[in-house]
Amino acid sequence: MATIFTKIVKGEIPSWKVAESEDFYAFLDISPLAKGHTLVVPKHTEEDYIFNLDADSYIALMAFSRKLAIAMKRAIPCKRIGMAVLGMEVPHTHVHLVPMNSEADMDFRASRLSLDAKEYKQIADSIAKEFNNE
Amino acid sequence: MATIFTKIVKGEIPSWKVAESEDFYAFLDISPLAKGHTLVVPKHTEEDYIFNLDADSYIALMAFSRKLAIAMKRAIPCKRIGMAVLGMEVPHTHVHLVPMNSEADMDFRASRLSLDAKEYKQIADSIAKEFNNE
Repeated sequence: MATIFTKIVKGEIPSWKVAESEDFYAFLDISPLAKGHTLVVPKHTEEDYIFNLDADSYIALMAFSRKLAIAMKRAIPCKRIGMAVLGMEVPHTHVHLVPMNSEADMDFRASRLSLDAKEYKQIADSIAKEFNNE
Repeated sequence: MATIFTKIVKGEIPSWKVAESEDFYAFLDISPLAKGHTLVVPKHTEEDYIFNLDADSYIALMAFSRKLAIAMKRAIPCKRIGMAVLGMEVPHTHVHLVPMNSEADMDFRASRLSLDAKEYKQIADSIAKEFNNE
């Protein structure tokens, strides 16, 4: 059965897309730790453990995440973009990119934000604009 | 003034080394979130924001971290190795690699473990052995 992330990549479940390449898809976490919290997933594999990806796929994922983090830092007011890969929830490799102002912004057990659709769209569009301008 | 991590790389402050290359140095976090929690730092720059590293240096750091994570998974009983870059504490880029059994193992605000020297040494040696066997 397809993971929820594969369904998102295929458009079977809607998402606030922020960036896409041939191999990767990035979208807003619907329950963000901070405004702009983004997930990056590989499109062509559901491998659930990042270090089981072959070296080339892993490096490509990390390079895509770097480009996106640089765009996010331009789009979202924050001190820096934090990066984390935990892999305990959805069984499909995903990189968290989180705009941070303090260490607390990367506390995965903290309560999540809930934004309205207009705000998600504004954030996604602002990141996408920076990403596509590079 | 040199960062604490530069002093560790130079041996001016002792550490439990687990892996080293020409460009990177990895050692046990002295206040680990979980047994085997390791920090990876670049040796030749103190740049404190990972996404300010040039693309090649960043990719090399990520590749080194992958090789080390694979070795750690062999050495430390755990479900997987989590990876995180927060950058809010020591102003010198560092990648956290944390052996995880649950999401709680990557809670940076949780209380840290304190191990005795014998245990740090045993853990460091077991990771180093796997790293050097690759």
